[in-house]
Amino acid sequence: MDYAARPDAEKSAVVLLSGGLDSTTAAAVALAEGFRVHALSFNYGQRHKVELESASRVAESLKLADHKVIDIDLRAFGGSALTADIAVPKSRDSAQMSRDIPVTYVPARNTIFLSFALAWCEVLNSTDIFVGMNALDYSGYPDCRPEFVSAYEQMARLATKTGIEGGPLTIHAPLMHMSKGDIVRTGLALGLDYGMTSSCYDPATSGQPCGLCDSCQLRAKGFAEAGAADPLLSRYRS
Amino acid sequence: MDYAARPDAEKSAVVLLSGGLDSTTAAAVALAEGFRVHALSFNYGQRHKVELESASRVAESLKLADHKVIDIDLRAFGGSALTADIAVPKSRDSAQMSRDIPVTYVPARNTIFLSFALAWCEVLNSTDIFVGMNALDYSGYPDCRPEFVSAYEQMARLATKTGIEGGPLTIHAPLMHMSKGDIVRTGLALGLDYGMTSSCYDPATSGQPCGLCDSCQLRAKGFAEAGAADPLLSRYRS
Repeated sequence: MDYAARPDAEKSAVVLLSGGLDSTTAAAVALAEGFRVHALSFNYGQRHKVELESASRVAESLKLADHKVIDIDLRAFGGSALTADIAVPKSRDSAQMSRDIPVTYVPARNTIFLSFALAWCEVLNSTDIFVGMNALDYSGYPDCRPEFVSAYEQMARLATKTGIEGGPLTIHAPLMHMSKGDIVRTGLALGLDYGMTSSCYDPATSGQPCGLCDSCQLRAKGFAEAGAADPLLSRYRS
Repeated sequence: MDYAARPDAEKSAVVLLSGGLDSTTAAAVALAEGFRVHALSFNYGQRHKVELESASRVAESLKLADHKVIDIDLRAFGGSALTADIAVPKSRDSAQMSRDIPVTYVPARNTIFLSFALAWCEVLNSTDIFVGMNALDYSGYPDCRPEFVSAYEQMARLATKTGIEGGPLTIHAPLMHMSKGDIVRTGLALGLDYGMTSSCYDPATSGQPCGLCDSCQLRAKGFAEAGAADPLLSRYRS
């Protein structure tokens, strides 16, 4: 399938793009569905800021219509290992991941990110947002669940100029019910080069993934299930 | 009634504080209801930045538990007279205000502000947010209506760590069904000095209100209905 940017596409969509495996796949799906893709990333004090470089690589490689990086200071509130001086947990098994909300949870992060996406939608006269959220192989975050996305969509329809009568606004979460293996397979079928993405919560200064955080483990599981090699890892092999 | 800060209050609430008449009244109501008040303001590129000085004056005067000002760049998207180089409309009558969404509407502003309040709530272990939204004498913004607030509350209950089971989270909008006159009367009964607030969308460099924008007109209507003089105006009278 061809995910090349379509400058003649009539519909615009805003895609939350972290530069990781999931959001990059969501962007490719949006392109494949014929949207002009406006990508939105956030510089929010995350320790894995290397993901912003990945997001830029992805936006350029997929020839997206636009890519904005918004500065927001989530450190003002504290409370997460991703933005504060708290250790990122390593080598948790899948039972732990699905049971506990980990310290890497950033309070209300997706609620905030979606709110900015909604603002951009209004300015673009767009009624479509794409997100990479996934409820199967995930880290136990409350704001990644389908019931959250559905409630957000209801709220967003009432929040906006176009939505004054509860008008159209769709939050597309095409990966919501996929396993990590399905996600990798979907992206590979769309021709994605996952070597330009990054997923690690706690990468080395070189960008090399730690291999042990939840995000690295879920990514490895995805490639194993899809029977594919992760091109990101071969970059760091000598 | 006494709205003095109560350092021994057990419940914390986050209050969206713009420094205007409505949000200041909402903060006073939260204090009167026995909450420790954590005030949240935003530096979002608004042309009426003088309101942040008002917010600081209010936080200090009411001895609030905390006051944070978050920088967010809503100008990145454009689309509003409050953040871009578009003229603020003057001398609209109340029929126009209730019919049209004006150019001073900032896309998804309240959705974004509430999302940050929600993040702070999570860190504080608070389940209460106070807002000054008002559906009667307002400027026709979609994100000031009771159905929006109610939908936001539903979403927020699912978004958060405490709300993983749709837990408690209340958005208090005590002024929602009040006229501007009722709001002024409520604040005066709580002993508020409205001279420390500011409402104008397009103030002079001195801070002097223009008197003609929607916000100035609604404020004047409130004081007239309450049969009180606006202490802010006497400051600029020589």
